[in-house]
Amino acid sequence: MRIARLNTPAGPQYAVERDGTWDHVMDPFETTLRYTGGTTTHRDAVFLAPAAPKVVLGIGHNLTLNDHPLPIQAWHKSVHTIANPGDTVTAARNRGNVNAEGELAVVIGKTAANLTAEEALDHVLGYTCVNDVTNVDQNAVDERNFQGKAGVNYTPLGPWIETELPDPERTGIDVYVNGTSMANSGTFNLPSSVAECLVYVTSWLTLEPGDLVMTGAPGTAVPVKPGDRVDVVVEGIGTLSNAVA
Amino acid sequence: MRIARLNTPAGPQYAVERDGTWDHVMDPFETTLRYTGGTTTHRDAVFLAPAAPKVVLGIGHNLTLNDHPLPIQAWHKSVHTIANPGDTVTAARNRGNVNAEGELAVVIGKTAANLTAEEALDHVLGYTCVNDVTNVDQNAVDERNFQGKAGVNYTPLGPWIETELPDPERTGIDVYVNGTSMANSGTFNLPSSVAECLVYVTSWLTLEPGDLVMTGAPGTAVPVKPGDRVDVVVEGIGTLSNAVA
Repeated sequence: MRIARLNTPAGPQYAVERDGTWDHVMDPFETTLRYTGGTTTHRDAVFLAPAAPKVVLGIGHNLTLNDHPLPIQAWHKSVHTIANPGDTVTAARNRGNVNAEGELAVVIGKTAANLTAEEALDHVLGYTCVNDVTNVDQNAVDERNFQGKAGVNYTPLGPWIETELPDPERTGIDVYVNGTSMANSGTFNLPSSVAECLVYVTSWLTLEPGDLVMTGAPGTAVPVKPGDRVDVVVEGIGTLSNAVA
Repeated sequence: MRIARLNTPAGPQYAVERDGTWDHVMDPFETTLRYTGGTTTHRDAVFLAPAAPKVVLGIGHNLTLNDHPLPIQAWHKSVHTIANPGDTVTAARNRGNVNAEGELAVVIGKTAANLTAEEALDHVLGYTCVNDVTNVDQNAVDERNFQGKAGVNYTPLGPWIETELPDPERTGIDVYVNGTSMANSGTFNLPSSVAECLVYVTSWLTLEPGDLVMTGAPGTAVPVKPGDRVDVVVEGIGTLSNAVA
């Protein structure tokens, strides 16, 4: 099932795709969905970031793709950076190279503390595409991941949450710049599974419904420059498109 | 002027101290305060964390108090960790030593981007006391400051916002454990001023009203254990008291 957050004349509205339309729901985190009776056609659907998290975490796997001595490690990204599909990423000027990073994002469905691997995925509402935009040259002087991750619209999210992703561990992730494939990979290249990420994170921090865990870029970091259009395509979910200015 | 967020039978309520009572206001971030006519006596006042930030930042000054090679550097702390005056901090078990860290916290008053030193303090609503509770032994394996800063009620805040702190650069900070003074210092021992912190942070991230910047612990990190009571006393503001369990 796809869950979107639509921009409607009455304000942001959660909706579920059924029979070719987006049917409005009260609260997608409820166990039993309550439909309002309102609906939006596919043609009129304007997608917002499908979650409004209070906490956004990135995952540093710190394995295989670098020689970092630390184990898996999370870091916080500002919720102020969350952007909608179609929003323009404002690349910070004179701060070195900017990367788009295509990733699978996990949307938490219910309060999650000290999860075991067995119960971890039961606490997931679904998955969406995220572009973890990064001023990559800051990494050398920003071990806290603050400076490189804080720009305007640096976390585009969407276009919707897919609740039935067939296999989160074997999901393709492609990144296109101006229509050309620049990265072709998938979660199968990440050193930690979704369940392992959630076990680690919730062993330290209690997550709440709507919180977001970005599972990391499996070789899907791609340099971008102003004027580019970036598409992050996550298999089984869809395409997240944003311009860079 | 003192601005508090009170726990009332009708829910959280912002209030301003006038003539010996707490007079309720609509929104403390408005230029002209609007009073509701409601009031709470001192005796009935139950204080909540006086701000509800979307972003909580800590400041690593990375100067003088350690030999860290990096310049001033911010990091995010989860808003889920914010606690009220009087709340019990749950020290994470079997994760090494826990420190209380008494600090001056800055509450942002209006949207702040790319501030100059001259205009920085004009974007501050006021100041409050914060206890940046930390699993200090995690620092060695947690360069992102996630693991050591994520426990339940790890960021007690309050008891109120003081809008007219005489000199944020010369404000005493004391930490008491079970009534005994364990640290006696102040912002004069921090290597960066409030203005310098805000210039740095807003050069990367746009802050919004209510966001919180913890200015760092000037030698005010004190080991605590379950059963302790911690008082953070910031001169010109007041006392923030919390138990540790």
